[in-house]
Amino acid sequence: MDLPAAPERLFASDNFSGAHPRYLEAMSRANVGHQPAYGLDSHTRAATELFRQFLDLEVDVLFTFGGTGSNVVALGSVLGPAQSVVCAACSHINVDETGAPEKFLGAKLQDVDSPDGKISPHQVEALLHGLGNIHHVQPGVVSITQATELGTTYSVDEIRALCEIAHDAKLTVHLDGARIANAVAAMGGGPETLRALTFGAGVDVVSFGGTKNGMVNAEAVLLRPGLAPHAPLVQKQSTQLPSKMRYVASQFVEALSDGLWLETATTANRRAHQLYDELGDIHSLRISPPQVNSLYPLLPRGAKEALQAWSFFWDWDLSCGQVRWMTSWDTTPEDVSRFAAGVRAALGG
Amino acid sequence: MDLPAAPERLFASDNFSGAHPRYLEAMSRANVGHQPAYGLDSHTRAATELFRQFLDLEVDVLFTFGGTGSNVVALGSVLGPAQSVVCAACSHINVDETGAPEKFLGAKLQDVDSPDGKISPHQVEALLHGLGNIHHVQPGVVSITQATELGTTYSVDEIRALCEIAHDAKLTVHLDGARIANAVAAMGGGPETLRALTFGAGVDVVSFGGTKNGMVNAEAVLLRPGLAPHAPLVQKQSTQLPSKMRYVASQFVEALSDGLWLETATTANRRAHQLYDELGDIHSLRISPPQVNSLYPLLPRGAKEALQAWSFFWDWDLSCGQVRWMTSWDTTPEDVSRFAAGVRAALGG
Amino acid sequence: MDLPAAPERLFASDNFSGAHPRYLEAMSRANVGHQPAYGLDSHTRAATELFRQFLDLEVDVLFTFGGTGSNVVALGSVLGPAQSVVCAACSHINVDETGAPEKFLGAKLQDVDSPDGKISPHQVEALLHGLGNIHHVQPGVVSITQATELGTTYSVDEIRALCEIAHDAKLTVHLDGARIANAVAAMGGGPETLRALTFGAGVDVVSFGGTKNGMVNAEAVLLRPGLAPHAPLVQKQSTQLPSKMRYVASQFVEALSDGLWLETATTANRRAHQLYDELGDIHSLRISPPQVNSLYPLLPRGAKEALQAWSFFWDWDLSCGQVRWMTSWDTTPEDVSRFAAGVRAALGG
Amino acid sequence: MDLPAAPERLFASDNFSGAHPRYLEAMSRANVGHQPAYGLDSHTRAATELFRQFLDLEVDVLFTFGGTGSNVVALGSVLGPAQSVVCAACSHINVDETGAPEKFLGAKLQDVDSPDGKISPHQVEALLHGLGNIHHVQPGVVSITQATELGTTYSVDEIRALCEIAHDAKLTVHLDGARIANAVAAMGGGPETLRALTFGAGVDVVSFGGTKNGMVNAEAVLLRPGLAPHAPLVQKQSTQLPSKMRYVASQFVEALSDGLWLETATTANRRAHQLYDELGDIHSLRISPPQVNSLYPLLPRGAKEALQAWSFFWDWDLSCGQVRWMTSWDTTPEDVSRFAAGVRAALGG
Repeated sequence: MDLPAAPERLFASDNFSGAHPRYLEAMSRANVGHQPAYGLDSHTRAATELFRQFLDLEVDVLFTFGGTGSNVVALGSVLGPAQSVVCAACSHINVDETGAPEKFLGAKLQDVDSPDGKISPHQVEALLHGLGNIHHVQPGVVSITQATELGTTYSVDEIRALCEIAHDAKLTVHLDGARIANAVAAMGGGPETLRALTFGAGVDVVSFGGTKNGMVNAEAVLLRPGLAPHAPLVQKQSTQLPSKMRYVASQFVEALSDGLWLETATTANRRAHQLYDELGDIHSLRISPPQVNSLYPLLPRGAKEALQAWSFFWDWDLSCGQVRWMTSWDTTPEDVSRFAAGVRAALGG
Repeated sequence: MDLPAAPERLFASDNFSGAHPRYLEAMSRANVGHQPAYGLDSHTRAATELFRQFLDLEVDVLFTFGGTGSNVVALGSVLGPAQSVVCAACSHINVDETGAPEKFLGAKLQDVDSPDGKISPHQVEALLHGLGNIHHVQPGVVSITQATELGTTYSVDEIRALCEIAHDAKLTVHLDGARIANAVAAMGGGPETLRALTFGAGVDVVSFGGTKNGMVNAEAVLLRPGLAPHAPLVQKQSTQLPSKMRYVASQFVEALSDGLWLETATTANRRAHQLYDELGDIHSLRISPPQVNSLYPLLPRGAKEALQAWSFFWDWDLSCGQVRWMTSWDTTPEDVSRFAAGVRAALGG
Repeated sequence: MDLPAAPERLFASDNFSGAHPRYLEAMSRANVGHQPAYGLDSHTRAATELFRQFLDLEVDVLFTFGGTGSNVVALGSVLGPAQSVVCAACSHINVDETGAPEKFLGAKLQDVDSPDGKISPHQVEALLHGLGNIHHVQPGVVSITQATELGTTYSVDEIRALCEIAHDAKLTVHLDGARIANAVAAMGGGPETLRALTFGAGVDVVSFGGTKNGMVNAEAVLLRPGLAPHAPLVQKQSTQLPSKMRYVASQFVEALSDGLWLETATTANRRAHQLYDELGDIHSLRISPPQVNSLYPLLPRGAKEALQAWSFFWDWDLSCGQVRWMTSWDTTPEDVSRFAAGVRAALGG
Repeated sequence: MDLPAAPERLFASDNFSGAHPRYLEAMSRANVGHQPAYGLDSHTRAATELFRQFLDLEVDVLFTFGGTGSNVVALGSVLGPAQSVVCAACSHINVDETGAPEKFLGAKLQDVDSPDGKISPHQVEALLHGLGNIHHVQPGVVSITQATELGTTYSVDEIRALCEIAHDAKLTVHLDGARIANAVAAMGGGPETLRALTFGAGVDVVSFGGTKNGMVNAEAVLLRPGLAPHAPLVQKQSTQLPSKMRYVASQFVEALSDGLWLETATTANRRAHQLYDELGDIHSLRISPPQVNSLYPLLPRGAKEALQAWSFFWDWDLSCGQVRWMTSWDTTPEDVSRFAAGVRAALGG
């Protein structure tokens, strides 16, 4: 198969891209003198303050190393005895964390089917019948992902409806925001959207992702004020308390102080739209317009394998030839055009 | 109390110091293009290869975020059902990790008294009587710290003796090397010393520390070849698998390729010796000569509080006025001289 | 609603019935003098020997208090690091044990849909793709229930097929036999059938139920010889090691020495068949012929509630009016006839 | 060595003795008809009511299978995130439960030295410094044993002092009462003493032992009203919820309705006193007068081994030849006299 020059950057994952240079610069600027360890430094204070201003809420903020770690800290801070976590079958906590939640929490994940990656209030309601029955785990937390693992997003109203059902039954709501910036960017951008999609809608605890959005292994957990005073203990106990925390926190200062976190996410989203614009006319691909930074096309086996050898991307559903194309903060318009050209060539287009 | 100008850097902890600039430069150099995530990148391969050359052994290498995390991964990779971890009462895993080992491992830490931070073969032997008795936890791992939390070091012979006792009873040996570079530097330096102090002496798994030695939240776990093929699963499950691993691994490439890891540790050790040289004559301090980078003097309450306000350091044993002074890779000779001058002034010397 | 005299015994659960008097007599006979605790007594030896003769295999036998406990001991004895348990969505371990497996094992239960309570080899196969991928839990045990929670049974061939798939991929197979006696009775009876349905077909570890079959809180775990030498430690650690074990073991001696275990199960099965014979002609009930000791009819709401008030039984699926009628070792033919008469009356028949 | 006829019953353990016949009779009387499972039966209600009358307090009561299980349920019901259990080094939970507490709770046991088996308020106080420090486990429960593993007892005042220290720092207090009846019997007997030694003194949760006091694998957990509404979930999750609970509860009805629980404990205590009376004059034994039902004499190796072969008992401290002689509810005066005669003969007396 004769394919044009491959793009410089892959469409495999936003985990394959590097970091925005400004984050490394921010780390270097923070690399001066001595600072108290474990979050008592000035950068951590500044980043915490920025989150509070953004959300107009005195959230508790914990800076962590990784996304799985953030989820474990978040869930471990709110889960009670014999409680379960309600989540989508395809959620990261359920399928991509090697059982870290079950191991650390000692708790069941009650997964519900979700063709679009989202949970409905009705699905939560259906699990509440076990409440009070000592033979069943007690639903304790509803965990949703925004944007979802399938590239879809919840609206503010959808999140609010879930929170109402959950809170009425005394459950809490966790939002896995590994790609929350992409969702915010897709839905208008700005701190107001972030607030509306999280604490404004009733969410209790948020895993706020940085790494996939261009940061150097930097994540945060945001908790509704007063929700879990013991959360910092859980953070340390789950091995997610960075000793030299300034190198995590200083990145968040950089991200939040002038909108860099939204700029990178917006770019990634735009590139996915561009890719859709360049390939959406090929009906056999069956691509839906992206909501954030990924497309899930169908490819014939021969073309798929040729393309993966040319510019690697992941299979999504081997049974039907579905793959995932994901853009990143550093994907360029030229990367997209080259990739689209390759796809056309592979499809004999 | 009239004290001279305080040193620019504190003597509180090697966790208070920043990172050696070369580590940030290495991260920046690694910040190019796309790389496979989760350790399939070229930097991780290179750093792994360097460790293997160093140790002349095909060790399995896992790069992690933090020290507590490294210990949990290391112990979790070798601990069997109903087994316990034998450790010193003052060990980091026992007192400074908020129970992370018990939480993740579901296992007992059997701590033994240790005025000097070290475990003796006799102490291990005394715990073996429980082996085979179903009512008692089964000692499974002996965990030692090198250099210890009290600034002491094990000799190669001492480690070998522990490994022999342990292996004879089918236990494994873990070495918490959060400050292993300081120990290696103190005992001759070089890869040969590292090998002799670890796998050469029979150690099965090592937490190899980077952060306290000047790296940006970077640690490694080294395992005897074939010891625990499931260790990477444990790493992911314990939330210690960095997605953008190149930023951890590239630092280790920098550290190991021309001896930077030993240079920084040697500097820290030297500054502690300098501090001892400048203050060892004050008998009331009761300082022992340092083996690595810390001193544990006694201070009268008034002087102690004045000095802590002037240039912060930690209490060690409040009951007797013992404190800890710790040097770091970035401590300068002038820092030491200023600090020593302050101590003399505070003691009315 | 005018209903005839209610039966003396309920059709609610084989957990509602008492114990066969011979078990209490056996306990009384064992209540003589002193015996070593924790399983070193003569009754435990005798019961173990009987199991070995039955199965013509030197199985390891652990006597436990309860069914959930047996399952936890069995699974905990064979599960490895980061491994999961594959089970049916409706299995007892998945829905009726309040998350005990997740809590004790720290492991994920990967449940598969199962309208008839059984798992197919194809379903196991579909989960094996995760093997070797460090981001996913590793299927480690396939757990099947015999007879299932839905009153169905696996044939020897079906179990063998599951074991082959599992063993080929280095998984083990657990059989939750809370009602294994009912299955054996339904499939011919005798030790040969027991052997064929378990170790003969390749099963690695069995929870052998006693309580639902007329014993006083007595269960056993049977393990393939050499499978898990540490299993007794797991038993103690999971709080399932009876100190005065003679009162559990002596019941198993009584059960196994002259076929009492099969006699009670056979009776329970027969009563279910009698109930089917007496009511199977009522088409609206939609009863399938029982395989063991339970029926799952549909009832109109009014009749259902009247009948439950008259002689209690459990709802099974509220959404469609399905209930469960379960017979027990002590159900009499007259109980069945009275119950059937009540059902006919309630249905206005 | 020429020894007289051995006693019919051993002096090894109150776990070696059988059950008082009245408990088996009570189980037989309860063995009538169907009863709801899992504690909704009439016997469980009656036994609960008896405990409440005894204690003049609406305690929550959970009936369990075993002592280790009771402790796990009790601790699991009150322990919070990142909390530890403070206990004596020689306590059953620390050394004789194969790490069940650490495994189920995922928590550290902070053991304190205790030559007499008891914890002092000062020892608790010394551990409170870690409260609020996120790097240390947070003491959450103080667990004491009454009577202790060393045969000693706490006075009401001693327990009250511990509870005050604990409650002032917001810790709860657990009492492992595997032999609480022996302690109550030793200190005056009757429900008033039980109340005074437990909830009256401030204890929050009690493991109330039955098995060692002559019951058939029957224990109870008593909780201060309102302390832990989720305790029944913890009980099920820890595999300690008997399905046919009537056989546990009916024994407690028998025990509590006319003082049988105290009668058996009183007998055991008396026999220990008789043994002391018959051997206390032999100075080389170094026996202290018993507080409950055990003696801890020193024996020369030759005599010890001869006696153990003649009538088995356990070593206590091999390093100094200390053994344990324990009486039980069924020990007769003649057993004691024979045993004492054997000891005198072995000592060449």
